[in-house]
Amino acid sequence: MSPGTSKVIAGITTSVDGYITGPDDGPEHGLGIGGERLHNWVMGGPWTYDGEHAFAMSAEDREFYDEFVAGIGSGLCGRGMYDASGAWGGTNPFGGTLHVVTHRTEDAPDPSTGFRFVDGFEQALALAREAAGEQDVAIAGGADMIRQGLAGGHVDVLEISTAPLILGKGKRLFEGFEHDIDLEKVTVHSSQWATHTTYAVKR
Amino acid sequence: MSPGTSKVIAGITTSVDGYITGPDDGPEHGLGIGGERLHNWVMGGPWTYDGEHAFAMSAEDREFYDEFVAGIGSGLCGRGMYDASGAWGGTNPFGGTLHVVTHRTEDAPDPSTGFRFVDGFEQALALAREAAGEQDVAIAGGADMIRQGLAGGHVDVLEISTAPLILGKGKRLFEGFEHDIDLEKVTVHSSQWATHTTYAVKR
Repeated sequence: MSPGTSKVIAGITTSVDGYITGPDDGPEHGLGIGGERLHNWVMGGPWTYDGEHAFAMSAEDREFYDEFVAGIGSGLCGRGMYDASGAWGGTNPFGGTLHVVTHRTEDAPDPSTGFRFVDGFEQALALAREAAGEQDVAIAGGADMIRQGLAGGHVDVLEISTAPLILGKGKRLFEGFEHDIDLEKVTVHSSQWATHTTYAVKR
Repeated sequence: MSPGTSKVIAGITTSVDGYITGPDDGPEHGLGIGGERLHNWVMGGPWTYDGEHAFAMSAEDREFYDEFVAGIGSGLCGRGMYDASGAWGGTNPFGGTLHVVTHRTEDAPDPSTGFRFVDGFEQALALAREAAGEQDVAIAGGADMIRQGLAGGHVDVLEISTAPLILGKGKRLFEGFEHDIDLEKVTVHSSQWATHTTYAVKR
């Protein structure tokens, strides 16, 4: 990894006990029962799926997020995350095209949405790299996409945003992941709602 | 929890994937295979059980550690941790008496070591509270002691030091822990070797 070249960045928010969703995540419950608290940092405080939230993203969270998004040229995510988020309201919120890994490609959205359905992780990563050019590639989740990226040695940077809660149940980021990987701390951004730690993956 | 009163502080170091040891921790392998990297922040860099390490604790890690230890009047830990550490060389490294929870009390060390064997978590916590007076009580680990403290509603402050590595195997801090607990971020100390996040437990 050298400055100026494209990096693959896996970024996700977890609870202190390592969950990226509460139980029953999906189209009906989004981040799962109680899991919406994981994204308080995104909303600037407690929020609901009905759109009720009082605040904007804090200055510390905004600084972290803007730095991350600024470098992204393209990315990929899993179908589960795409569905659970309600396709982010219908438009890709990240830079460039977001490649959605899914075996069910028949209901692919219009390319103008910024989403592209791709049947397979490796293929999606190759397309995202091509689309990103010299910019960075984001692996936006879910857990299985990030585990595949790490297991395959594709991830250059791992960004973990830790929310101040213990969930107890849900989907664990490192469930069943048995690789030993050394990391190097790059930056920490801290707010009331999250500790964002950025790691470079050592090789 | 109000200023000036005794708090129960659970503090431990974990990997990014939530392990507090590598595999096969115990008297022979200490923090388990590869787990010694968890404590690079304690040693100021890579180290071995033969005593080989080059550096002293970094200024950031020292600041976190000194703040933590300064308030501790007494504490408790599990027998597994006591044995795995080799009884910290024979003397309690923390403030006051460290109560070691164990069913095997027949080989209790001399009280001058600063260790006291107690048969049961609740009893050890009561004794530690009594010994600490208006100072804080530390739950130093292992994972099962911290889980018992959290599950029982005893913990006021949770301190997680996250080391920059993915272990893949070992003992997980939140293994089998299914409680949902809201936390409030208090402080973050960051060094090359760890992100120390201090949380108050909300009630």
